[in-house]
Amino acid sequence: MPSYTPPLRDMQFVMHEVLKVTDDLKLCPQHADTDADTINAVLEEGGKFASEVAFPLNISGDEEGCTLDKTTHEVTAPKGFKEAYAQYVQGGWAALSCDPAYGGQGLPFVVNQCFYEMLNSANQAWTMYPGLSHGAYEALQAHGTDAQKALYLPKLTSGEWTGTMCLTEPHCGTDLGLLRTKAEPLADGSYAITGNKIFISAGEHDMAENIVHLVLARLPDAPVGSKGISLFAVPKFHVSADGTLGKRNGIYCGGLEHKMGIHGNATAQMVLEGAIGTLVGQPNKGLAAMFVMMNAARLGVGNQSLGLTEVAYQNALAYAKDRIQMRSLSGTKAKDKPADPIIVHPDVRKMLLTAKAYAEGGRALGIFCGVLLDKEHSHPDEKVRADSGELLALLTPIVKAFLTDNGHISTNACMQVFGGHGFIKEWGMEQYVRDNRINMIYEGTNTIQSLDLLGRKVLGNNGATLKKFGRLVAALVEEEGVNEKMAEFITPIAILGDQVTKLTTELGFKGFQNADEVGAAAVDYLRVAGHLVFGYFWARMAQVALREIAAGNTDQFYLAKVQTARFYFAKLFPETATLMRTMRTGSKALMDTDAALA
Amino acid sequence: MPSYTPPLRDMQFVMHEVLKVTDDLKLCPQHADTDADTINAVLEEGGKFASEVAFPLNISGDEEGCTLDKTTHEVTAPKGFKEAYAQYVQGGWAALSCDPAYGGQGLPFVVNQCFYEMLNSANQAWTMYPGLSHGAYEALQAHGTDAQKALYLPKLTSGEWTGTMCLTEPHCGTDLGLLRTKAEPLADGSYAITGNKIFISAGEHDMAENIVHLVLARLPDAPVGSKGISLFAVPKFHVSADGTLGKRNGIYCGGLEHKMGIHGNATAQMVLEGAIGTLVGQPNKGLAAMFVMMNAARLGVGNQSLGLTEVAYQNALAYAKDRIQMRSLSGTKAKDKPADPIIVHPDVRKMLLTAKAYAEGGRALGIFCGVLLDKEHSHPDEKVRADSGELLALLTPIVKAFLTDNGHISTNACMQVFGGHGFIKEWGMEQYVRDNRINMIYEGTNTIQSLDLLGRKVLGNNGATLKKFGRLVAALVEEEGVNEKMAEFITPIAILGDQVTKLTTELGFKGFQNADEVGAAAVDYLRVAGHLVFGYFWARMAQVALREIAAGNTDQFYLAKVQTARFYFAKLFPETATLMRTMRTGSKALMDTDAALA
Repeated sequence: MPSYTPPLRDMQFVMHEVLKVTDDLKLCPQHADTDADTINAVLEEGGKFASEVAFPLNISGDEEGCTLDKTTHEVTAPKGFKEAYAQYVQGGWAALSCDPAYGGQGLPFVVNQCFYEMLNSANQAWTMYPGLSHGAYEALQAHGTDAQKALYLPKLTSGEWTGTMCLTEPHCGTDLGLLRTKAEPLADGSYAITGNKIFISAGEHDMAENIVHLVLARLPDAPVGSKGISLFAVPKFHVSADGTLGKRNGIYCGGLEHKMGIHGNATAQMVLEGAIGTLVGQPNKGLAAMFVMMNAARLGVGNQSLGLTEVAYQNALAYAKDRIQMRSLSGTKAKDKPADPIIVHPDVRKMLLTAKAYAEGGRALGIFCGVLLDKEHSHPDEKVRADSGELLALLTPIVKAFLTDNGHISTNACMQVFGGHGFIKEWGMEQYVRDNRINMIYEGTNTIQSLDLLGRKVLGNNGATLKKFGRLVAALVEEEGVNEKMAEFITPIAILGDQVTKLTTELGFKGFQNADEVGAAAVDYLRVAGHLVFGYFWARMAQVALREIAAGNTDQFYLAKVQTARFYFAKLFPETATLMRTMRTGSKALMDTDAALA
Repeated sequence: MPSYTPPLRDMQFVMHEVLKVTDDLKLCPQHADTDADTINAVLEEGGKFASEVAFPLNISGDEEGCTLDKTTHEVTAPKGFKEAYAQYVQGGWAALSCDPAYGGQGLPFVVNQCFYEMLNSANQAWTMYPGLSHGAYEALQAHGTDAQKALYLPKLTSGEWTGTMCLTEPHCGTDLGLLRTKAEPLADGSYAITGNKIFISAGEHDMAENIVHLVLARLPDAPVGSKGISLFAVPKFHVSADGTLGKRNGIYCGGLEHKMGIHGNATAQMVLEGAIGTLVGQPNKGLAAMFVMMNAARLGVGNQSLGLTEVAYQNALAYAKDRIQMRSLSGTKAKDKPADPIIVHPDVRKMLLTAKAYAEGGRALGIFCGVLLDKEHSHPDEKVRADSGELLALLTPIVKAFLTDNGHISTNACMQVFGGHGFIKEWGMEQYVRDNRINMIYEGTNTIQSLDLLGRKVLGNNGATLKKFGRLVAALVEEEGVNEKMAEFITPIAILGDQVTKLTTELGFKGFQNADEVGAAAVDYLRVAGHLVFGYFWARMAQVALREIAAGNTDQFYLAKVQTARFYFAKLFPETATLMRTMRTGSKALMDTDAALA
């Protein structure tokens, strides 16, 4: 059976030693009093909830899955999920980063980021129930009417109710412009909504007393395509103005999907038969309102894979130290044993370090994005808010796609460390691979993320936002360029930064002539950008660690950090060499293939 | 629901147009009369069996799995498996490449290679039941006594009985030197064997009337480690000298593993309690006898992933043509539809072509190895036999590891083409990912394959065998070096061939000083070697196709081949650029990490 230890020390290192997040938070009036001790104390308790309450339900939840009663349309989550959720609500965890105006604790988003990393390590399927609520909360907070906010936000904040995103239909996922669900206006200003939705995560369950579905649908006079989509709040149970629950609304679960992973989360087919809802935001502007949820969800999905990468790593490391098999090629290491622990073997170390480097790099990026979110929401300077939002928009597709692809690589590597035992369910490793697999797909496939990055976020403003990130890299290169000890970390990112600048110009030119050139390069481009970002954070982490070591600090944590940074630059970062080549081969090898794909 | 069409045309292309296998077979007396028409006719029938009998049981077998009756220790395979196996036996498919002396049809191994590719596409879990028998057959044929051969080979040939390999124990898989199962000699020359085996594929089932287990165990006076292991034939039911079945032997299934995939195949924990067996080969030389099975199994595992790559590709291609979603970036393609089929998107094509290029490259290599096996067994010239065996030994770890890693990449890519639907069981795509995952692990993990390749097969004889393959590459470069139309295929392999030669010398030198340098480079080295081999076969396939096109042949098959070759060299082959770099960073970044892995 696997185990999990919250990586509090590494979170503290990134937050307080590398990024110095409280320096930024102090400037935001509502977080001015949130000091490092507070953050650490909350996360210590959060880690306990994750490891002691959510984690023990992970394997059993996978085995049992969710059950739909086809008569009542009620879904029962796996054993223990409901009770764990009650503890979560009681502990106030749902309210962590919510607005005090609605009963929230008003802590910075970056705390929630770290808390959710731990929840995802513990149990991705369970965590998706409260996780989806955050997107619904944010969409309503940003676009809801005062009445909607008053009705829904306190209940989402307390966690008494959960939320969903009802977007996908059988014939459309990526292409929401095709959606068919209809909303008919009623005399009282509400709407009767009819249609079929699929793949609705946490769409129906027995863990909360009500569920607020945010549903995309078309008004009768709506333009065709994506410009004719509106967003509606559709509660499972009708809610009176005083907040009391009324009758069941006409939205119910018609079936549950049988999936590769995240069995503990109900992936529901939702049927709407004249379900009553209220409009969120402006008519026909539903996609904009939806994207508030979606951006939160994309950051959340990257965080899911970060969590799985970390927990897979911890368990593979423990196994590699415990399992004895063969002798080290360079001579016996454990003379008292009939064989050496497999951690002596170079490739076993490579698999472990791959997961470790991707986990710690992902954590640094995730925390950095958490602070950007705080600054975007709470910084008093409008320009800082705008800049933070812009940089976060650039990094969001990288968080979503790079971290989930890395999660795929890492969970598979960690499973491989177990040999045949990795394929056996009771060890828990294959579940991490299966659960992670959806993260590369939902909330916009990783290909869609790459098009968002290269097409919209980079080329869409002629590289202006990318240059903002480039300036961070350049500042570090400037700062450490003459430090010989930092050269092994600085030189690669300086070179790659220049290459990316040149490449981006090239792609802009090629894409202007033929848009398929953008589509052909995008996935490779995103991974290159991911390595530039990870390289930057790994260099900053190595910088702090080397300074501590130079100052005589003998805490092995710092040496570990430098060793992992060296591994990252030696074995993972050079992936960019291939990607730069494959990008430059362009679209012809893909598009001039009609005979091959006949 | 997925579908499957046997790739007969491509098999014929590789066998008859590229490799001209009957030229080689004609020189082997026992295959002198096997012409192309015979091979094609057999494979056409074999394809029907695969697609019409084995394929329809694939998803249902995954859903149902195997059932163990804990009282009788009997295992029931999923519904329909037994009946399909009866058809297989009745059709004489088990006997295809077996020796006519035991009732076999005596067809070349290369025919069996193609037949098994199709069975694996159709149903890997089912195919493992007859598949394991081939290894047992070959081990007994090579090392069995006349009595053992007379007793077991006719029944394995007919398929009335199946075979297994009982190697792994709970504490040892890779490191068989640690195994503990004991064999006590009895007065009649047989042995009483006691111990526990795990992970025994097809270890117990209801599909055949008897099972011949080939079991590794230690004699009482055996030296410690791998030099003290002997191989025994242990039937499930005792067999009289006249072949009639007697009582149940003391070997039974103590439990079935719950696994990530291949649910339809019984992965058995086998308990031996004084089970009676007979010695196969010499005492304490069991590993050598076992390796006859193991080498067959390793080629077989590569073939499993080839099969899964092909079937995943076929279904992803069909989906990509059918599913409409978004418009092409370079302008609307399907004006009559509300969106374009997703095959217009460059990255969708990349995912499809990745699987196609890996499938067709793997098929060429698999067929090439099949012919080598035939020449090793049947060529009249001893030198040809030895050379063929040596080259096959070099290629075996590449077939096992490169094809299974490619299967992982390909089945995941094909699943990704389906978006969210890929994660849903009913589409069948996620099963290909799960089933393929074991292929990277069993019969020696892919890391073990890489050490076998670099440590034993390449550096073990100072690159002599590698040079033999290098001469094939050099001959092609020589032949086509001045042909401008072939330059795009020839130049990359010529360059990589030189790089590999240089790199191998470097690694030999570094490994001589520190064996961990070999372990650090091995996995990357195997993938580079794999691309050199695939590059060679893709160049040969392109050569034939270009000649046909130049001669005015308008069959689109040839154009498709050239397009796929171009894709391969543009988008997959450049992986070597990264691998050459990461190898040269050496072992330090992996081994000097004790603090990181504390």
